[in-house]
Amino acid sequence: MSNLDDILKSRRDTRHFTTDEVPDEVIQKALQAGHWAPSVGLTDATRYFLIKSNEVKTSIKNLFLDYNKKAAELTDNEKQKELYNSLKLEAIEEAPIGLIIAYDRSVLNQFTIGTIGSNEAVKFSSVCAAQNIWLSLTEQGYGMGWVSILNYYQFKKILDLPENIEPLGYFCIGKPATNYNNQPMLQQLNWKQKSEAPICKEITEIHKINISDFDLKSKTEIENKTDFNIRLQEKIDSKTKPVGSLGTLETLAFQMATVFETLNPKIEKPNIVVFAADHGIANHGVSDYPQDVTRQMVTNFLDGGAAINVFCKQNDIQLSIVDAGVNYDFPTNTKLINAKIAKGTQSFLHVSAMSETEVQLCLDKGKSIVENIAKSGSNCIGFGEMGIGNTSTASVLMSLLTGFSIEECVGKGTGVSDEKLIQKQNILKKAIENYSGQAELMSQLAYFGGFEILQMAGGMLSAFENKMLILVDGFICTVAYLIALKINSNISKNAVFCHCSAEKAHIKLLNYLNAKPILNLDLRLGEGTGCAVAFPILKSAEVFLNEMASFESAGISKK
Amino acid sequence: MSNLDDILKSRRDTRHFTTDEVPDEVIQKALQAGHWAPSVGLTDATRYFLIKSNEVKTSIKNLFLDYNKKAAELTDNEKQKELYNSLKLEAIEEAPIGLIIAYDRSVLNQFTIGTIGSNEAVKFSSVCAAQNIWLSLTEQGYGMGWVSILNYYQFKKILDLPENIEPLGYFCIGKPATNYNNQPMLQQLNWKQKSEAPICKEITEIHKINISDFDLKSKTEIENKTDFNIRLQEKIDSKTKPVGSLGTLETLAFQMATVFETLNPKIEKPNIVVFAADHGIANHGVSDYPQDVTRQMVTNFLDGGAAINVFCKQNDIQLSIVDAGVNYDFPTNTKLINAKIAKGTQSFLHVSAMSETEVQLCLDKGKSIVENIAKSGSNCIGFGEMGIGNTSTASVLMSLLTGFSIEECVGKGTGVSDEKLIQKQNILKKAIENYSGQAELMSQLAYFGGFEILQMAGGMLSAFENKMLILVDGFICTVAYLIALKINSNISKNAVFCHCSAEKAHIKLLNYLNAKPILNLDLRLGEGTGCAVAFPILKSAEVFLNEMASFESAGISKK
Repeated sequence: MSNLDDILKSRRDTRHFTTDEVPDEVIQKALQAGHWAPSVGLTDATRYFLIKSNEVKTSIKNLFLDYNKKAAELTDNEKQKELYNSLKLEAIEEAPIGLIIAYDRSVLNQFTIGTIGSNEAVKFSSVCAAQNIWLSLTEQGYGMGWVSILNYYQFKKILDLPENIEPLGYFCIGKPATNYNNQPMLQQLNWKQKSEAPICKEITEIHKINISDFDLKSKTEIENKTDFNIRLQEKIDSKTKPVGSLGTLETLAFQMATVFETLNPKIEKPNIVVFAADHGIANHGVSDYPQDVTRQMVTNFLDGGAAINVFCKQNDIQLSIVDAGVNYDFPTNTKLINAKIAKGTQSFLHVSAMSETEVQLCLDKGKSIVENIAKSGSNCIGFGEMGIGNTSTASVLMSLLTGFSIEECVGKGTGVSDEKLIQKQNILKKAIENYSGQAELMSQLAYFGGFEILQMAGGMLSAFENKMLILVDGFICTVAYLIALKINSNISKNAVFCHCSAEKAHIKLLNYLNAKPILNLDLRLGEGTGCAVAFPILKSAEVFLNEMASFESAGISKK
Repeated sequence: MSNLDDILKSRRDTRHFTTDEVPDEVIQKALQAGHWAPSVGLTDATRYFLIKSNEVKTSIKNLFLDYNKKAAELTDNEKQKELYNSLKLEAIEEAPIGLIIAYDRSVLNQFTIGTIGSNEAVKFSSVCAAQNIWLSLTEQGYGMGWVSILNYYQFKKILDLPENIEPLGYFCIGKPATNYNNQPMLQQLNWKQKSEAPICKEITEIHKINISDFDLKSKTEIENKTDFNIRLQEKIDSKTKPVGSLGTLETLAFQMATVFETLNPKIEKPNIVVFAADHGIANHGVSDYPQDVTRQMVTNFLDGGAAINVFCKQNDIQLSIVDAGVNYDFPTNTKLINAKIAKGTQSFLHVSAMSETEVQLCLDKGKSIVENIAKSGSNCIGFGEMGIGNTSTASVLMSLLTGFSIEECVGKGTGVSDEKLIQKQNILKKAIENYSGQAELMSQLAYFGGFEILQMAGGMLSAFENKMLILVDGFICTVAYLIALKINSNISKNAVFCHCSAEKAHIKLLNYLNAKPILNLDLRLGEGTGCAVAFPILKSAEVFLNEMASFESAGISKK
């Protein structure tokens, strides 16, 4: 046979062989034909393995039988299944020669021309070699059948092929017993008809791809917010993940970008400020701890031994401690920020906790502390507190500012007993009943406020003005947020609720605020610990937005 | 030219063409040669696209230039880079005819003979067609050059090729301007020499596969558990905070200390392992994404662009990626851990997903991967997964192992529509009804399992034996945990549930397991992202136990 078209046309996927032997020269000539096939980047990765042993053939036949049974089960059509089972799809044991054509994928370990778009180019070269071998055998009057119905993993195992050698299949070689009426066997058996002619179409124009440029420098003013938000959402959705699949992290990333007014937001110099103060109400048995513990804990903060210290250290957060009004004179040589209004408030069970001037002072002090932190380059601030008795203060303020009954606003604080809880509720109820002042914010804050709570509120207002993220901690901190919100409702855009505490009133208040906190770990410690523990989640939102690949850049199919 | 060997030998990958036109008859004859190529199962999947337009050619040339620049940057060897840049690797604009040879992978949507071992058989048929065309053009006095240095994603986009059409490359056709001294151009230019003769070896014997039994060693017990636990609780309660006020962090610290058997537990070399595999069931429209996305995402993991990469980097977690059975051959030079069982499972809609031997292989592979990580000094391992279609696999396994109806176990995965959800439920229901095997774990795992899910289960069993913390991610990972738990119920002591996903079946399963996950962030991505994002919380548990001051050491009043 000498005309190429005749050879191409008469090449068959042969499953029926005579018992005639195949001379070595025939195989050698065929392998040489394979060797003339293209080899991408001249990688020369094609490898051949010959099989003559009956034992080896039988083992391979068994692998085939195992997978062929599975294949038959793939069709529900009973007629098709029957026809399939009648098909002879291999001649592993009858064909005198078995050939494995494989490629060595370890060539990809070196710099290889032509594989950057797809490393499949290496295996394609070997497939070209297979086709050349097929044609050469056809020309020489022999036939080949390609068996691909195998578990390749087990195939490699039983043949002890190295990890890097990947077989294209098992090829049966011998003298053909039939030419299937010069057509594919499956066509002769009416399995299917091949199309008459090749399916070809001309492409005359290109399709434009719009790749949006996400590399936008941060601007001080976003001219068109809607446009910014659309681009931001596009950036989030372009990441290599199903749309929305990062849940809360996506919400946080969106918020962070809008607060920082950039598509590439970065948290800079995160800071947690713990405001400490004492409360006159603590003298009425509302807490299990003596008031002196406020002072002791401030010392513990300064010494680095409290929970907030270890969490800030863990997560690389700067920690600032503020004396907003602790009933103690601290030495001046500490790192404590002095914003003391007085040595604790008065007990609102009998008198106003502070004057309206002191309320203003608190707001101002809190504001200037946060302003200084902003000036140092921080754009993310967490608020924490310490103050024996301050859950009582917070409960009363919550009740007054939301309208919930005091019972709904009182919890166990850092852990009073059931009996004590009732006592606490009764005391606070009485305090509210005693109040004869205006139903007006400033008056209420003066009568029932706490120095640390009001300084936090002032700090939050300043954080908003400085375009910082405001991390809200537990119950008391959320009450401070509620106060700030009454003064400037815009601050909600900047607020991140870090934690839902075990204090039941906190859950109620979060619902009232429509806030969805990041964590729910039964913490009820305060000190800003919720902010510190949740902080890495906020970082996760930042890094996914900035560092993840996009579908476009990674070349991944979108759904 | 009429002798086959002469044609085979003189076929060149041509990059230099004259300006002579190519008559239509030449192309038609060549495409007919392609049409005579083998077609697995007579699928007739090869498609041709012709390009004559200069505008289209220029756009393709630009894609080439973009990727070729990338390719040059892959070598650090300056001399090699220089030589590479001097090579002419295409003739896209000069060659009068451009041809795209592609295959239509949608043929795999129907029952296809010869593809059960590997669906690559379909593309191999098209490569044979390419080789036939090359030979025909050579015989007719024309030449062809195969350009594979392209971003195929963009290539398909600009040519507006449908999702299911996969090009093998761009082929330049014309009258050759040179025959490169009758040798490959790269050889002529001394880039490399091709080996003199084909590399061939005879295989004379088979290699037995030994699969070790999955035996569980009895663990060394802590002699006096009660005493240890009392001392541990005392240590936790001695910290400067109200008793129990660190909530879940205290529970985690307690667990960590008991797993590591020390009062001063420290997480060492935390590791997250992502197991990736393909699922036969994916071919039945249970996912919105094409199966190829599994491979694409593995590449994304290796390139560092996925969510799990950025979260691991953020939190200093070592990341390992395992090919448990992806339907693709990855290059060996990557950091991918090769544990491939097969190129994807079979579809359990019709047949067993895998054999029982393969189940054992999976458990073994998972075990040895985790053992190696334990040996490297890690005591904390997170499990993640990637596999298009694997929520379906997980749902069926959950239903069988818990007794919940399939409707209760099916969710939207990474985000299918309501309509698709019903369809998914129906398909899975049918699959379960079709099952005629034993109601016994091994049979069920073989029939409905997934390679990555079972490797995770094996890995968890090994993590338990190695006294590691086992971080459980989302729904699919929790199903792997459920399987491991059925084999050894003791592993629950070591399990930390990191995240409650948005998949409703996950909530049900967590309740069934009495598991209280750390996070609830609406994540539904998989990849181990829940483990990575929750990891800092675990660290917080560790640092408070080890670094916080005690009431005694800080001199603070206890209540």
